[in-house]
Amino acid sequence: MAHIELNNDLPGIRGLMAYRPETEKPLNALAEVLLRDDNNTLSRGERELIATYVSYLNDCFFCQNVHGSIAGHYLNCNIEQIDKIKADFSETDLSPKMKAFLNIAARVQIGGKHVSEDDIAKAREAGATDIEIHDVVLIAAAFCMFNRYVDGLGTWAPQDRMFYVNRAPQRAEEGYLGSVFK
Amino acid sequence: MAHIELNNDLPGIRGLMAYRPETEKPLNALAEVLLRDDNNTLSRGERELIATYVSYLNDCFFCQNVHGSIAGHYLNCNIEQIDKIKADFSETDLSPKMKAFLNIAARVQIGGKHVSEDDIAKAREAGATDIEIHDVVLIAAAFCMFNRYVDGLGTWAPQDRMFYVNRAPQRAEEGYLGSVFK
Repeated sequence: MAHIELNNDLPGIRGLMAYRPETEKPLNALAEVLLRDDNNTLSRGERELIATYVSYLNDCFFCQNVHGSIAGHYLNCNIEQIDKIKADFSETDLSPKMKAFLNIAARVQIGGKHVSEDDIAKAREAGATDIEIHDVVLIAAAFCMFNRYVDGLGTWAPQDRMFYVNRAPQRAEEGYLGSVFK
Repeated sequence: MAHIELNNDLPGIRGLMAYRPETEKPLNALAEVLLRDDNNTLSRGERELIATYVSYLNDCFFCQNVHGSIAGHYLNCNIEQIDKIKADFSETDLSPKMKAFLNIAARVQIGGKHVSEDDIAKAREAGATDIEIHDVVLIAAAFCMFNRYVDGLGTWAPQDRMFYVNRAPQRAEEGYLGSVFK
């Protein structure tokens, strides 16, 4: 049960957003532009994977399963493959550029000052542009917010991971704008 | 110098927002509703103080000085008084409710799961409402994002703390919507 009375039985961030629509709007607008905007050289799957990895590092069950399932949907991966990336992405067949991004995301998760010139240089060597580096840092930072919001208020989450997998195609289609009302 | 070429010389988050107006909009909208919306039983000064404290815990020089100066402006405190709150709020004459909120904010800064039922109960005993607790958690979480964004991309910040103090009245008047263009 959440730390506060939400007056709804929606899980995770959806219960919080229904409770406080004033803050729901900019939060969803941020998720939409960061994770789904078509004007981006990072695919939706790549961006969802960064969100998933940060949520895993922050141990947020709801977010890592919501976004891990959507990443799997876009990238044609199953749960086990997403779990392997979370456990040790360096041992997977992800591209060097994606590995450099997940490394930067992990630094951001610890704290902004942990991102080094060397981390940035490795991403550039793998072909990353400045705007991609910007977006990776902001996606990672944003999930340090979303994860804390979800767990800081003690929200509940369905424990069956297939719940998230089964809903992923619909979530991918709907996007984040106004999703709490659907 | 920032980790990426921003094509402007604006400090801190302002340089990032001018570089990427697509993400600037929801970020500023979030700051505006969380820190300034009049329909809130927490004062603007109280909300800026929570933002300041989390930015201090995250060691973000730019954010803790911007928001510390705005908090000082609203609360009629000088830099030294804000510094005392940051160093040990329990030893100040802040209200028990505000102390309970800063305690919750500090838990959120470590991680969402660090907020305990006891932390919430202490805030309630001091008179906190559910929506206030919600907003405190989200303000703290949001600054875990803003701080990581600012430092994760290696932005520069004026080192003279009076720069922030002198600009605070104008920032308080302008608000956060579209402030990068002013």
